[in-house]
Amino acid sequence: MIGNLVKNYKNLKAFNLLKQFIPKGFSTQKKMSLDSQIDIQPSKFMQKLINPTIFELIVPLSQKYQSINLASGFPDWETPEFLCNAVTEAFKLPEHQYAPVGGHPALIQKLCERYSKSLNRNILPQNISVGLGGSGVIYDIYTAFLNEGDELIVFEPFFEYHSKEAKLLGVNVKACSLIEPEDFENGEWQIDFKQFESLINDKTRMIVLNSPHNPTGKVFTREEYQKIADIVKKYPKVLVLADDVYETLIYDNKEFPRFVDIPGMFERTLQVFSLGKLFSCTGWRIGFCIGPEQFIKIVRATHAIICYSVHRPVQIGFAKALDEAKSKYMGTDDNYEVNIRKRFEKNRNVILEGFKNLNANLKLNKPQGGYFIVGSLKDHVGKIPRKYFFKDFENVPDGDALLGDTPFEEFEQAEVTPDVAFFKYMIIEKGVTVIPMSSFYIQDDEKNLKNIKGRYFFRIALPRKEETINSAFKKLNQTLKQN
Amino acid sequence: MIGNLVKNYKNLKAFNLLKQFIPKGFSTQKKMSLDSQIDIQPSKFMQKLINPTIFELIVPLSQKYQSINLASGFPDWETPEFLCNAVTEAFKLPEHQYAPVGGHPALIQKLCERYSKSLNRNILPQNISVGLGGSGVIYDIYTAFLNEGDELIVFEPFFEYHSKEAKLLGVNVKACSLIEPEDFENGEWQIDFKQFESLINDKTRMIVLNSPHNPTGKVFTREEYQKIADIVKKYPKVLVLADDVYETLIYDNKEFPRFVDIPGMFERTLQVFSLGKLFSCTGWRIGFCIGPEQFIKIVRATHAIICYSVHRPVQIGFAKALDEAKSKYMGTDDNYEVNIRKRFEKNRNVILEGFKNLNANLKLNKPQGGYFIVGSLKDHVGKIPRKYFFKDFENVPDGDALLGDTPFEEFEQAEVTPDVAFFKYMIIEKGVTVIPMSSFYIQDDEKNLKNIKGRYFFRIALPRKEETINSAFKKLNQTLKQN
Repeated sequence: MIGNLVKNYKNLKAFNLLKQFIPKGFSTQKKMSLDSQIDIQPSKFMQKLINPTIFELIVPLSQKYQSINLASGFPDWETPEFLCNAVTEAFKLPEHQYAPVGGHPALIQKLCERYSKSLNRNILPQNISVGLGGSGVIYDIYTAFLNEGDELIVFEPFFEYHSKEAKLLGVNVKACSLIEPEDFENGEWQIDFKQFESLINDKTRMIVLNSPHNPTGKVFTREEYQKIADIVKKYPKVLVLADDVYETLIYDNKEFPRFVDIPGMFERTLQVFSLGKLFSCTGWRIGFCIGPEQFIKIVRATHAIICYSVHRPVQIGFAKALDEAKSKYMGTDDNYEVNIRKRFEKNRNVILEGFKNLNANLKLNKPQGGYFIVGSLKDHVGKIPRKYFFKDFENVPDGDALLGDTPFEEFEQAEVTPDVAFFKYMIIEKGVTVIPMSSFYIQDDEKNLKNIKGRYFFRIALPRKEETINSAFKKLNQTLKQN
Repeated sequence: MIGNLVKNYKNLKAFNLLKQFIPKGFSTQKKMSLDSQIDIQPSKFMQKLINPTIFELIVPLSQKYQSINLASGFPDWETPEFLCNAVTEAFKLPEHQYAPVGGHPALIQKLCERYSKSLNRNILPQNISVGLGGSGVIYDIYTAFLNEGDELIVFEPFFEYHSKEAKLLGVNVKACSLIEPEDFENGEWQIDFKQFESLINDKTRMIVLNSPHNPTGKVFTREEYQKIADIVKKYPKVLVLADDVYETLIYDNKEFPRFVDIPGMFERTLQVFSLGKLFSCTGWRIGFCIGPEQFIKIVRATHAIICYSVHRPVQIGFAKALDEAKSKYMGTDDNYEVNIRKRFEKNRNVILEGFKNLNANLKLNKPQGGYFIVGSLKDHVGKIPRKYFFKDFENVPDGDALLGDTPFEEFEQAEVTPDVAFFKYMIIEKGVTVIPMSSFYIQDDEKNLKNIKGRYFFRIALPRKEETINSAFKKLNQTLKQN
């Protein structure tokens, strides 16, 4: 019975951390009124994945506490008008039936033009497969190439989809650490190459790269890519998935190396891109991948089975918008893409500066690119009221007392990690939502809270309107600023 | 190496049937110029599914031979203007970021209203999960509940997605026959219940129903559903998937029973619907399923991992259109849904009549509902030139001679089945495309052409403009009519 099954999940730590926040609709504890003759269970892979993760709770929780959402990975600003117009025009065409499996020819053509230029390589239609957003494309690729029991390596911290989609196929996900910089505010996250070499083996079938990286904003260097390539080359069965969805968001005029530029690597790599991320319309769900024809053929065949094809008029609209995006935008001398990058970069600088001015011992790492900033709350732990370290935080004796000088690792009664305590405290008392980052790691020792990876980190999203950021800092300056 | 892998596939019968027609882009025989250090293979399930099926070739082949496409399962007529307008309006709203996983609340609400009424049952938001078209929703459901090695029963002939999506998960697909009517033109396809009982067992995890049925147009009766339910009840682990995407297309004022109306069956059934089919916009890719909350929760969680959510503005547009569809349509006294059903029914009648008038011994079964008509070419085989029974049909000595009185089963040299020969002959000589139906069956004895199931059947699609049907019959009256 599902009821019993769900009961077993209740002991899972991740679920426990969330339970106190789960809105009514998510309840899994409700008694099932199933006919006693029915015993239908989720697939064995889904049984381990069925509980909501923190990502699904951010929006409802922010709304519940009227907290300003600096957490979720989508913009609160407008989608460009030229794109909306292009799509609206496309709906007037007599093109409303199934698009071709690999993508609409009009879109494919524009993508070939764009990426032949930006990849400095002749990209042909047969090098592209269009799918349902970046995550849908990744699922197409995983399904196309991975079997139960295969191993996949991802760099952690990582966006949960890279791991959840693999687990849905029974794939074993191994995490190679990005080591936090010693100088947290100005340093760069470093790959633990020794660990990488220890993780890769004959069972490894895929390496997932992501640059600029979610959540750290790390832009992988050519030297790092070369070292990865040198290792990967020893394993003929390893396909590389390069999640490049944040490709246009590189800050401080930094160079943006591509893994496929390392000799021999285009031939074994599928690069994933997202039009929703590029054009600030994550809800439109169009992504695509680029790679060698023989792999794209397999991805397309897989995509055809999973869902056949994606929205036809929207693909046509994107094709037109890709052309229009080259023109000067919003009265500036820059095109859309440069404008949007500058907007992200400005937000990064404002947020870094804003947190510095709070004097609250919340350190932010300066990202080199991408959608996010990672912060460390390690030096702020003492300022968090004790109660937030308990699941039933509303009924903790002396709960408003600060944790103070007690290091978290010696706080034996604690029931949740500092990032989760901080997340609750920020939403409820400070009115701003950030994401706790322990869920961005694979935990080797889930029960021992003092060993939970990512327990001092939180993530902030950059794509926010100026007024959203101003409101957030107005609140934080009232509630969090230390003198 | 993929090259070798593909070489192995070349022996597969289905592939051989198609090979002669495969356009250049589909070639799988091209030598791979892969680095010798790369040995990346498709997943074990994809290895068996990688070759294109006849469905993917219909459109390019019809175009190549300028044949009128009466084959594909999508309309060539317009998508209703009120829907296009509703979606265009939705693009003006500030709703462009990720929709909620289960579906946009506006759409969910309208679906609750519609289906509370049509299912005569209180349908709540938590009973609905929105996904990427009917096929995307089916894949969500399969992934949510099925494991490798599980068994699934489908009634054959069947739409290939019902089986391919299951095979991608390593599920064993078993087919229960719908027996063709003795009086082919006026009779009804009958379930082989003896076979059904022999197929269901403790490994069975899902039964796929589809009414009105693709391709036969059969509308399952209440008595048949009761008999199925009586058998299913003995198996507590069996979930029923009722593919009801053609629910609005019931002809001759026939009753439309629903499987979920059999007592106890709603509790173990997920019903699948398609807004693309309802509104003649198959390329917009929005479908949904309805069922008990505890199963929908699992489907949503699975959908969230596969692709997170589907197109937000389009969902909002559909919500509005569902209201507008209730109004009188196009100056008639009927609403959109009744209009569209009458259009299908009229096409059915025109096509049945048209084929009868050809006097070509091509018998069509009168469908009770749905998108398609099944025809039998059994009595027409003698009229097909011999060459079409060979793969290299352009180089057959005396190839233009008709097969004549030789029964196909005694035609030892034949390399393809009559349905495939007929398909080629119709495209090339008669200028009209229909679908050969042997691919709608699971073949037990693939190598023995005289035992191939469905070898005398072809499928015609109903949603065609009046002028398309007129043009088709103009051609057929010139090329095929017998006096």
